[in-house]
Amino acid sequence: MYLSAATWQEIEARIKSGKKSIIIPIGSHEQHGPTGLIGTDAMCPQIILDEAQKQADILIGPNFGVGQAQHHMAFAGSMTLRPSTMIATIVDWTNSLAHHGFTHIYWLNGHGGNCATINAAFCETYHQYSMKGESAPFKHLLMNWWELPGITKFCMDLFPVGHGSHATASEVALTYWRFKERESLNQLKLEPKIAPSGSIRDALDYRKQFPDGRIGSDPTTATIELGGKIVEASVKALLESFKEFEKA
Amino acid sequence: MYLSAATWQEIEARIKSGKKSIIIPIGSHEQHGPTGLIGTDAMCPQIILDEAQKQADILIGPNFGVGQAQHHMAFAGSMTLRPSTMIATIVDWTNSLAHHGFTHIYWLNGHGGNCATINAAFCETYHQYSMKGESAPFKHLLMNWWELPGITKFCMDLFPVGHGSHATASEVALTYWRFKERESLNQLKLEPKIAPSGSIRDALDYRKQFPDGRIGSDPTTATIELGGKIVEASVKALLESFKEFEKA
Amino acid sequence: MYLSAATWQEIEARIKSGKKSIIIPIGSHEQHGPTGLIGTDAMCPQIILDEAQKQADILIGPNFGVGQAQHHMAFAGSMTLRPSTMIATIVDWTNSLAHHGFTHIYWLNGHGGNCATINAAFCETYHQYSMKGESAPFKHLLMNWWELPGITKFCMDLFPVGHGSHATASEVALTYWRFKERESLNQLKLEPKIAPSGSIRDALDYRKQFPDGRIGSDPTTATIELGGKIVEASVKALLESFKEFEKA
Amino acid sequence: MYLSAATWQEIEARIKSGKKSIIIPIGSHEQHGPTGLIGTDAMCPQIILDEAQKQADILIGPNFGVGQAQHHMAFAGSMTLRPSTMIATIVDWTNSLAHHGFTHIYWLNGHGGNCATINAAFCETYHQYSMKGESAPFKHLLMNWWELPGITKFCMDLFPVGHGSHATASEVALTYWRFKERESLNQLKLEPKIAPSGSIRDALDYRKQFPDGRIGSDPTTATIELGGKIVEASVKALLESFKEFEKA
Amino acid sequence: MYLSAATWQEIEARIKSGKKSIIIPIGSHEQHGPTGLIGTDAMCPQIILDEAQKQADILIGPNFGVGQAQHHMAFAGSMTLRPSTMIATIVDWTNSLAHHGFTHIYWLNGHGGNCATINAAFCETYHQYSMKGESAPFKHLLMNWWELPGITKFCMDLFPVGHGSHATASEVALTYWRFKERESLNQLKLEPKIAPSGSIRDALDYRKQFPDGRIGSDPTTATIELGGKIVEASVKALLESFKEFEKA
Amino acid sequence: MYLSAATWQEIEARIKSGKKSIIIPIGSHEQHGPTGLIGTDAMCPQIILDEAQKQADILIGPNFGVGQAQHHMAFAGSMTLRPSTMIATIVDWTNSLAHHGFTHIYWLNGHGGNCATINAAFCETYHQYSMKGESAPFKHLLMNWWELPGITKFCMDLFPVGHGSHATASEVALTYWRFKERESLNQLKLEPKIAPSGSIRDALDYRKQFPDGRIGSDPTTATIELGGKIVEASVKALLESFKEFEKA
Repeated sequence: MYLSAATWQEIEARIKSGKKSIIIPIGSHEQHGPTGLIGTDAMCPQIILDEAQKQADILIGPNFGVGQAQHHMAFAGSMTLRPSTMIATIVDWTNSLAHHGFTHIYWLNGHGGNCATINAAFCETYHQYSMKGESAPFKHLLMNWWELPGITKFCMDLFPVGHGSHATASEVALTYWRFKERESLNQLKLEPKIAPSGSIRDALDYRKQFPDGRIGSDPTTATIELGGKIVEASVKALLESFKEFEKA
Repeated sequence: MYLSAATWQEIEARIKSGKKSIIIPIGSHEQHGPTGLIGTDAMCPQIILDEAQKQADILIGPNFGVGQAQHHMAFAGSMTLRPSTMIATIVDWTNSLAHHGFTHIYWLNGHGGNCATINAAFCETYHQYSMKGESAPFKHLLMNWWELPGITKFCMDLFPVGHGSHATASEVALTYWRFKERESLNQLKLEPKIAPSGSIRDALDYRKQFPDGRIGSDPTTATIELGGKIVEASVKALLESFKEFEKA
Repeated sequence: MYLSAATWQEIEARIKSGKKSIIIPIGSHEQHGPTGLIGTDAMCPQIILDEAQKQADILIGPNFGVGQAQHHMAFAGSMTLRPSTMIATIVDWTNSLAHHGFTHIYWLNGHGGNCATINAAFCETYHQYSMKGESAPFKHLLMNWWELPGITKFCMDLFPVGHGSHATASEVALTYWRFKERESLNQLKLEPKIAPSGSIRDALDYRKQFPDGRIGSDPTTATIELGGKIVEASVKALLESFKEFEKA
Repeated sequence: MYLSAATWQEIEARIKSGKKSIIIPIGSHEQHGPTGLIGTDAMCPQIILDEAQKQADILIGPNFGVGQAQHHMAFAGSMTLRPSTMIATIVDWTNSLAHHGFTHIYWLNGHGGNCATINAAFCETYHQYSMKGESAPFKHLLMNWWELPGITKFCMDLFPVGHGSHATASEVALTYWRFKERESLNQLKLEPKIAPSGSIRDALDYRKQFPDGRIGSDPTTATIELGGKIVEASVKALLESFKEFEKA
Repeated sequence: MYLSAATWQEIEARIKSGKKSIIIPIGSHEQHGPTGLIGTDAMCPQIILDEAQKQADILIGPNFGVGQAQHHMAFAGSMTLRPSTMIATIVDWTNSLAHHGFTHIYWLNGHGGNCATINAAFCETYHQYSMKGESAPFKHLLMNWWELPGITKFCMDLFPVGHGSHATASEVALTYWRFKERESLNQLKLEPKIAPSGSIRDALDYRKQFPDGRIGSDPTTATIELGGKIVEASVKALLESFKEFEKA
Repeated sequence: MYLSAATWQEIEARIKSGKKSIIIPIGSHEQHGPTGLIGTDAMCPQIILDEAQKQADILIGPNFGVGQAQHHMAFAGSMTLRPSTMIATIVDWTNSLAHHGFTHIYWLNGHGGNCATINAAFCETYHQYSMKGESAPFKHLLMNWWELPGITKFCMDLFPVGHGSHATASEVALTYWRFKERESLNQLKLEPKIAPSGSIRDALDYRKQFPDGRIGSDPTTATIELGGKIVEASVKALLESFKEFEKA
């Protein structure tokens, strides 16, 4: 079930019935190498959730699609929030949801570069209550989709070589599964086949280290078919993880 | 063409070829009465753009789906940004796009309550350049989809009675056209048939004045079919309006 | 009655007696073409209120004299706030007034460029209450003096040609009525006689489009006498509009 | 000469001719005891400047009339900015003036409670340049009118007993000189005749210590006549002080 | 060498000679259970650095001693910054150091709860440059002292049982080594001997889960002697880690 | 007693026993001329407090060691906060301490350039309560160590010539007393012997006026011995001043 497609009375009834948890897909719009799509990180959680909601009664909020990606800004099409802006926004989203009685907010994240800022934002939301000596009426969970129970291993088994850490084979596969017409990007010859690794700082430094945008990956092995397998496994893991969180 | 589904090299090539304009769908997640969907204002621009990109070579950015909606917060599921947060976010999106050389940013808006804050944000983005004595390298346009050339009259003709100003018959129709399974919401009996009108202040005041959320509307006349007509007319108007803006 | 010239005990007594409304003149310091004064937008509401308080028991607050005018910054003497600063300031003014029990705050505005930011600021003030689930203890009204009931038509009738939208004949006349020694500015030859029209973006763009600062106007028709007529009509309209707002 | 009443071309010509200094009257709207006016601190600098500009070619900017006055908020009619808001505003005013080539900004202040925040704001404006390794193109001076050379002694001689430090006899006299119809407030019997002294913290603490708002003063000795003498002396001192600053 | 105890000419000469790296000890003031000290997280990096500077020519900056600790606020003496404040502060420290030509800033951290906010702050500092298309003139490294190469294992070997994750045996030992008079705190009987584990949210939730403040630890095994061993090992690891960072 | 070296239970017991005051040493890291140390302003209050706590039962909080020093940024090693950042930080420290029941917060300051911002920050902390109509549960006192009762005269008597106002003989002596190995800096020949005086604006202006960093001082007369005398006198004065504040 999507918040977008529900009426307020349906949401009110749902909360009153005790279903007080919501999942927010959160990601980024940033370069994903020559064969990956700019919206990869925003779409991966969405793809998993779109499938998951067919199998279980979960509530999915709007897509938080632009995140912290300053290091990708030397590649066309990348977008970024300042961390301070992103914190303010997550505070507003959280306070909005808490206002209606949502008690469990599960952030399914598609972008590693968001993690620090999201966790800092969680502290900013809790701070409001901690300083008043009140219990926060909500609990956050940040879950990177690739860290859903079992998924890292699952992906590594599918792509034992060149999985990488940005523009990974698995995330690229996931997006091909959704945007099937884009699978042919995997025909491109990448040089080097497996991209270099390194650490992340500012945008020019990033581009110098990682000239085509990939880090440690060879995503040309990504296919629609493998993407479908990852979706299937991730949906299962997500539903279990979310069920557990709801009990917390 | 969607920024989400493009590679950075495709976007770079596009900009280099002189196509430097982008459209951002912007809206809100907020109650739309008993028969309207919470995501209406985020979805209406998206629906129009999804159709428009089939007919013309336009570039569509991510959906800015949560806006300024403090007055709806007494209805479950509504979400809001503080105007100051929204300004910071629009500044970041604008600076990101301008960084890559986009010169024309067209904001197709679905929520009247966003207008003041978006326009204030535009000033904040221009201010950066005006105070340096430099030309801003971009131009903004804010366009409410219902104010696309000819569309207000078109909608009024379709719904001569009870069009209203929130949870309008036309926006509800638009969303039914996309979410066909939700058209049956128009079977609900609303009381009064046409909602009252008034002015907007804080959330409790809003709920007192407009108990079921609608303002001035009877959206039970909305149908999939009429929604389709509005989509068709809006796509045409959008493409003309956007083409004109690109020349500005 | 002016807040400036009252004692705190007089204001306390006034509020206790049930007179809980206040009018804030708000404007800008920005160029108004070769024949208009930089303080025009701050002074026009003040002039109207100075006359109005002779005819009725209204309370006038301090002049909010510098607003959002980034687009005028390429003309000497113009001043501007960032929209985010202006929002913070309006929040502080509002919270100060509300703290003492003022329930109706009427902002008589002299600058179109302020409108978006003022309306965004209103949302920011209401947001504080909407998120707590409390009624805001105050109501705002934003009124541009030239949109007081009947005034637009009144001015257009006085200046059927070349009224314009910035450095308008009517606002310039209003200021001549107050600063009579400045009426002779209307002897200047302006070229073109009627300034061009266009849309507003950053400061350099503005100066390029509107080289002497005027938009669409020929303010050389402004005179002390016509200014006096506008004052008279505006005072009447203001007092009616304000009385109506007090009942809201 | 007033910025308000000048055209942009006059200001441009003035700056080009080498007259690059401006005076900003800055104050507060806050209680001034039973016999003092709420706008005292905003009006005192204005009164002095209004006279000064008759005697010398100085340029006077808009009145910054609401300042930092949180400690007065337990008395009706008082208004306050958060220090952080006030800093942002002074930064914007300064950057606006510097943009046009003003090199000397003289802040004639009427409110002791503003000093810390104004000085902090000066640092914030200089910080912009210090961190870029550039010279700031402007110099600030903060001058409290009562600390103009010789004025403290002058006032103390006029009011050897009960001058005080808030709602002082001299500032009240200054305002009576302008608002002559308010002189009769000095007929009120104040109890105690000379108000207590103490230190300033939050608003309730202030009201407890200083029940009618005055600190250390007996302003019933203020008269129009004495106010006039203070104006005369202050104008002379201001013009000398300002001339000296222009040379800095 | 300490920045505190150097003259500006010594620092200038040092930078000119090519020594452009600096280490900032960063931590927190927050409860560390019944046997641990509130300043533990600020002191641990300081203790290691105090020893390290005896062995090598490193430059140590001021102690950033109050961090993000909202979750500890239900225990007396704990202090916290909002993440947004902490980001602004780290931006200011970074820009200050970069201004003088420091190119490598190594943050030796003592508090896990700081990590997200520090990393978000790093992005905020890099963002300034990424958006200008310039290389950042500095590189950050965040290193938790307990994650210095080999140290986690070293500590676990010393405290195979009850090392824990807050108020850990090793950090408590480190502080006893410095504050020898406080070692006797390890005579306290803690109940349960090994504290529970769990996840961290707001302050009241934390206190409920972890009633005496510890997480997963039995710090009564901490001694001066073991603290000394950890210091020795950590100094060695720090110097190697820092040398490697300087080459980056 | 140091907050750093106490357990939370000790602090809780202390507050419950009625000891609700705390002293925060606050200063700066900034150049202090060729013979003074960069950390002078942070260390002077700390040195005094380190001695004071041997003589009396006072509680000392963490060192707030980086302050407002934009004007020193043209000298290597200087660090600065924006005033707005510093205000946010002082608000957070204050709210943290108040949360636990501290009622008296005494800021022993070592840097004149901090005063305006600290006082502005105090207003920001009180503002929170003044606007809610609640008493602030805490009282602040800002005390510059050199303005402790009798200390200015004491220092002037020790250094009748060339005491100065930045890199003063007395503050330099204080730091030599702590860092005895640095006393030999006083052998440097300074030119001119007594530095010039002037007013403070941005960093380049400062460096031009005060080429080696000193203002009005000849700190070569500073010795360990004289530093010790100042410490002794200051400790005595501090303990009396603090005792008096606790009664306020």
